[in-house]
Amino acid sequence: MREVFQQELREVQDQLVEIADLVATSITAATRAFTESNVSLAEQVIDNDRRIDELAVSLDERAIDILARQQPVARDLRIVVSALRISASLERMGDIAEHIAQLARYRFPEKAVPKGLRSTFAEMGRLDVEIAVMLTELLRTQDVELAEQIRNEDDKIDELHVSVFDKVLGETWKGEPAATVDATLASRYHERFADHAVSIAKKVQYLATGDWAQDSSTD
Amino acid sequence: MREVFQQELREVQDQLVEIADLVATSITAATRAFTESNVSLAEQVIDNDRRIDELAVSLDERAIDILARQQPVARDLRIVVSALRISASLERMGDIAEHIAQLARYRFPEKAVPKGLRSTFAEMGRLDVEIAVMLTELLRTQDVELAEQIRNEDDKIDELHVSVFDKVLGETWKGEPAATVDATLASRYHERFADHAVSIAKKVQYLATGDWAQDSSTD
Repeated sequence: MREVFQQELREVQDQLVEIADLVATSITAATRAFTESNVSLAEQVIDNDRRIDELAVSLDERAIDILARQQPVARDLRIVVSALRISASLERMGDIAEHIAQLARYRFPEKAVPKGLRSTFAEMGRLDVEIAVMLTELLRTQDVELAEQIRNEDDKIDELHVSVFDKVLGETWKGEPAATVDATLASRYHERFADHAVSIAKKVQYLATGDWAQDSSTD
Repeated sequence: MREVFQQELREVQDQLVEIADLVATSITAATRAFTESNVSLAEQVIDNDRRIDELAVSLDERAIDILARQQPVARDLRIVVSALRISASLERMGDIAEHIAQLARYRFPEKAVPKGLRSTFAEMGRLDVEIAVMLTELLRTQDVELAEQIRNEDDKIDELHVSVFDKVLGETWKGEPAATVDATLASRYHERFADHAVSIAKKVQYLATGDWAQDSSTD
């Protein structure tokens, strides 16, 4: 029974890695779609998100089935509950990648990235992709060093997020309202994407350290 | 054992109602803080959010404890897992109410609500408050009619959300970039708040109808 359970937990973990991998693919394509105003890439991200949603639903059903049949307690129970939470965050990250890609579609054939903010959004996109790749690796290896690195990258995103507002609220900003809207939304999406990664990283860390109480926090 | 379990489930439900009630208080105050640029109300919302977070953590711990001790299966298991998900959504609604309130603080002593959008945001705020109150009632009574009403109110919010973008991207918009940023963020927050309520309403509905597969969807 115990061996079957461990095998089932590994399968849940594998499926989380698979979803995280798709999220990394999505944010990579979404970032390119946004910065290059590439509409066909944007459509790929939208298709990809459907797959992420399906996998998240199937993982959740599997986790609930494990709870019902194996009735785990203590750390094993925490692992299964965390898997449910991690899948919800990954699903949300897929949605956000889709939102970023959609910005490219709404403005097409205009560029969605506002002038004066190209390098900022290139950097935010690069950091979000890096975070998604590290997250996949963290879920695969449970190497908590990666959790720390994800937090550091998130700090950089937060700084860039503030800098976007400094820019659009500054005296030199000449953007049209559409550029201001796009800058506001894109910055917010990039920041939220990274926040979800940090939230997942914390859950993996808490599972490793046994500090359960903190695990319930959804921030 | 069964009786103890039913009593524990009722306590979880009571705690969800308590959190939802606080969320309704928060969004009511946040809406007033935002529309009236009332900074002391904004601070109340921020304090309130701390309480919501604490209650959500304590509810989650209680739900995990029930899973470990009672090892529920079938519908009972779904109820406990749904409680975990509902608490995560309520916690997020508290965060969003805080974000709306913060907009008032960032612009103080200026008004955060952009000219030309006062009535739109008054209506969005009114709808979000109405939704939060209906949600509390839904969690208290499990009356699925309310779930349907919440969806209808959410449709109205979505229409207003679109109308905000029509306005700020239209030719008559004379707002400064700060007004455009505030309109964009406030509209997004109001829309997300309602989305979370719909997501919770669906979970309550699925529990009532037994259509579990859909319950995993986090949208």
